[in-house]
Amino acid sequence: MLFLVRMDVHPPLDMPAEKFAEIKATEKAYSLSLQRDGRWAHIWRIVGQYSNYSIFDVSGNDELHKLLQDLPLYPYSSFQVTPLATHPSDIAVQ
Amino acid sequence: MLFLVRMDVHPPLDMPAEKFAEIKATEKAYSLSLQRDGRWAHIWRIVGQYSNYSIFDVSGNDELHKLLQDLPLYPYSSFQVTPLATHPSDIAVQ
Amino acid sequence: MLFLVRMDVHPPLDMPAEKFAEIKATEKAYSLSLQRDGRWAHIWRIVGQYSNYSIFDVSGNDELHKLLQDLPLYPYSSFQVTPLATHPSDIAVQ
Amino acid sequence: MLFLVRMDVHPPLDMPAEKFAEIKATEKAYSLSLQRDGRWAHIWRIVGQYSNYSIFDVSGNDELHKLLQDLPLYPYSSFQVTPLATHPSDIAVQ
Amino acid sequence: MLFLVRMDVHPPLDMPAEKFAEIKATEKAYSLSLQRDGRWAHIWRIVGQYSNYSIFDVSGNDELHKLLQDLPLYPYSSFQVTPLATHPSDIAVQ
Amino acid sequence: MLFLVRMDVHPPLDMPAEKFAEIKATEKAYSLSLQRDGRWAHIWRIVGQYSNYSIFDVSGNDELHKLLQDLPLYPYSSFQVTPLATHPSDIAVQ
Amino acid sequence: MLFLVRMDVHPPLDMPAEKFAEIKATEKAYSLSLQRDGRWAHIWRIVGQYSNYSIFDVSGNDELHKLLQDLPLYPYSSFQVTPLATHPSDIAVQ
Amino acid sequence: MLFLVRMDVHPPLDMPAEKFAEIKATEKAYSLSLQRDGRWAHIWRIVGQYSNYSIFDVSGNDELHKLLQDLPLYPYSSFQVTPLATHPSDIAVQ
Amino acid sequence: MLFLVRMDVHPPLDMPAEKFAEIKATEKAYSLSLQRDGRWAHIWRIVGQYSNYSIFDVSGNDELHKLLQDLPLYPYSSFQVTPLATHPSDIAVQ
Amino acid sequence: MLFLVRMDVHPPLDMPAEKFAEIKATEKAYSLSLQRDGRWAHIWRIVGQYSNYSIFDVSGNDELHKLLQDLPLYPYSSFQVTPLATHPSDIAVQ
Repeated sequence: MLFLVRMDVHPPLDMPAEKFAEIKATEKAYSLSLQRDGRWAHIWRIVGQYSNYSIFDVSGNDELHKLLQDLPLYPYSSFQVTPLATHPSDIAVQ
Repeated sequence: MLFLVRMDVHPPLDMPAEKFAEIKATEKAYSLSLQRDGRWAHIWRIVGQYSNYSIFDVSGNDELHKLLQDLPLYPYSSFQVTPLATHPSDIAVQ
Repeated sequence: MLFLVRMDVHPPLDMPAEKFAEIKATEKAYSLSLQRDGRWAHIWRIVGQYSNYSIFDVSGNDELHKLLQDLPLYPYSSFQVTPLATHPSDIAVQ
Repeated sequence: MLFLVRMDVHPPLDMPAEKFAEIKATEKAYSLSLQRDGRWAHIWRIVGQYSNYSIFDVSGNDELHKLLQDLPLYPYSSFQVTPLATHPSDIAVQ
Repeated sequence: MLFLVRMDVHPPLDMPAEKFAEIKATEKAYSLSLQRDGRWAHIWRIVGQYSNYSIFDVSGNDELHKLLQDLPLYPYSSFQVTPLATHPSDIAVQ
Repeated sequence: MLFLVRMDVHPPLDMPAEKFAEIKATEKAYSLSLQRDGRWAHIWRIVGQYSNYSIFDVSGNDELHKLLQDLPLYPYSSFQVTPLATHPSDIAVQ
Repeated sequence: MLFLVRMDVHPPLDMPAEKFAEIKATEKAYSLSLQRDGRWAHIWRIVGQYSNYSIFDVSGNDELHKLLQDLPLYPYSSFQVTPLATHPSDIAVQ
Repeated sequence: MLFLVRMDVHPPLDMPAEKFAEIKATEKAYSLSLQRDGRWAHIWRIVGQYSNYSIFDVSGNDELHKLLQDLPLYPYSSFQVTPLATHPSDIAVQ
Repeated sequence: MLFLVRMDVHPPLDMPAEKFAEIKATEKAYSLSLQRDGRWAHIWRIVGQYSNYSIFDVSGNDELHKLLQDLPLYPYSSFQVTPLATHPSDIAVQ
Repeated sequence: MLFLVRMDVHPPLDMPAEKFAEIKATEKAYSLSLQRDGRWAHIWRIVGQYSNYSIFDVSGNDELHKLLQDLPLYPYSSFQVTPLATHPSDIAVQ
């Protein structure tokens, strides 16, 4: 089941750069592991923003919430989640 | 170059159903041809909306505008275009 | 899987009252059948609005979109869909 | 009398984790006691948000305000309250 | 129980003036009868708008929805409903 | 002359509780004195918000601004002011 | 007493040009008479909009509402009204 | 050339009252000098807000930006600028 | 003096295609003449919108309003005007 | 390929003036170098705002994101990016 997720990161300006770099490194490793197992299907940077649009492919709402909540950047981010359905013009379903 | 495009269709309530069905058939054929040549990379229905989120993979802004403007549903739709860049955590660039 | 759906009906002022009453009767029968089989779990009127908040319990995004799109009032309505997850304070999961 | 309440928690980033955990534990106990006596009829997590949608079943506006104001997380939260009425298509009133 | 209701009237420009005048006369009579029995406690014109702010004093959400829905201007109006509670600084509760 | 005023209080989380309690006590005394002399005609709590809707009955814009600016909570609040006129359906003017 | 009023005109595209020109002529005569007696203190065109910002100098809310409601363009316009008070830095009050 | 400027002041709650009073005194002197030379044509307080609406009469965009940027309260304020043109109903141009 | 203007065209769906094509041809001729004399300094299409961002270089607010109001598409368009000033980092002013 | 970029700077009020001046000097040097090589085609101050509208001429989305992210003021700014296409009325394409 697919979801479009917009994630906006709000880095706390007063956090030591080193600590924030560490959080970002953990975030990246976590993201890569989810990309490898297929649940984080796509990730794109939004030009000019500390934000990404991503496609998640999960078993349902509960799994998606858990994945997002476990993001190391979760406390410094906001999320917009849009449930996606198969489009009748999608070439995959012709 | 990738763009996220949100397309909201506003079907005119007073158009004869037959005529609108014809426009939608042309739209679908056009969409499928663009999916086949790779420029319309993804298309997803937004749940509960006469809308889709799509990923376009084009040579640039001019080509994208031409593709959208040539959509048979263009006069009955509104579009939001978000330019996308490669994300440093994308597994494809590790 | 649960979703909160807000449905706002925009009755076309120029449709004959009889025809709209007929559409509403079909809508009600359809809603009742979905309530009976458990997929339309709750429906509440929003005070002062031709709108409802509803809880749907479905297998996923595709099923939800189909249910909404099949509503007789779909062409005269707009929808906002919010995916819901289990809350850790929900008494049912203690 | 039913109300839909959206509650968005804004955890203060500079509060010691321990103190916030304590507030959350009190909040959960308070929520469970209200669920047990039937006044907090439903609680759902909004996917990707530190937020919930809840249904309250109370005697009226004054009781609802008191319940919300007494939430341990009240000073760190914002609320949107929507009064709900019986829907004529609700299967319970046929 | 008190509610603040904002009512915005959108008079249909193509309705014959006579017919709209008739609807407004019925509306006024209905409003006066509710003012007389105390349920429509206050009504004020918003300066520069075809709108009013009103205070309703009703037994609950269901009664309020019924009152609003029965307004002759209901099909040509939109409503915002805010539930009100007793304020601790209200002189009436000292 | 009547005005509807919405007042949203934003209590500073880092102010000592004692000091804020003191400000609120002064605010309440000030509000009561204005209610007694008839200029603060009504005050209602908005359910679920640290906010009130109030009706002020003053000689004009200058007096209203002075009253609001003198509120002890003024530096921690925001205000929306709506000028009200007599409504032709008000029972008092029949 | 001063008010800033923003007036946005929405000319109905399907009204015969002649009839609209007539309404505008009556509007202009009405505006000039109010400018002459000092109640319509200023009127400015907003660049690129069929809109004006105006200053009205009236005895109070009721008079302002009557003036606006009597505008020949009132049924084709929307209004935003902001009550103004004397500013302590105004050179006139030093 | 005229411009409507809305200025919203956001006084920093943690600045010593004395220092802020000093900034405001300089602001007032600066405003008065611009009012004397005719470039700050009008200034009005918005009721219930730490804000003003002002009319500036300047030679063009560059001069207006310089005047605003030199305000002592500039770092603690936000501005909305609306360019104004002569209105054809203005009595001054008949 | 420079202004950024965003122009959104709302083509009336019920106008005969021929008549609209004629209006657009006049619009284009008018735009080209203003580009030739330097007052319409730049014009760009917004991707996916029947809209443009343009830079106008005019003597002031009155001239800009006249230019926009004379556009053949003016009755079918909306405009947002932003006054621009010289930027201190502009290479032209070093 | 052209993009319109709106950049809003939010200078941190608690940063020492000297340090911020240093960042701004680096920003200016960086901007000038991009103006010299043609990629930062235009920069204009928005009147009354610590903001600019700029035109960038780059090879695509990835290059634009890199340019913006490398701005010394990037951590203290927000950006809105609008992709631009050639306009059919542009005199350059006749």
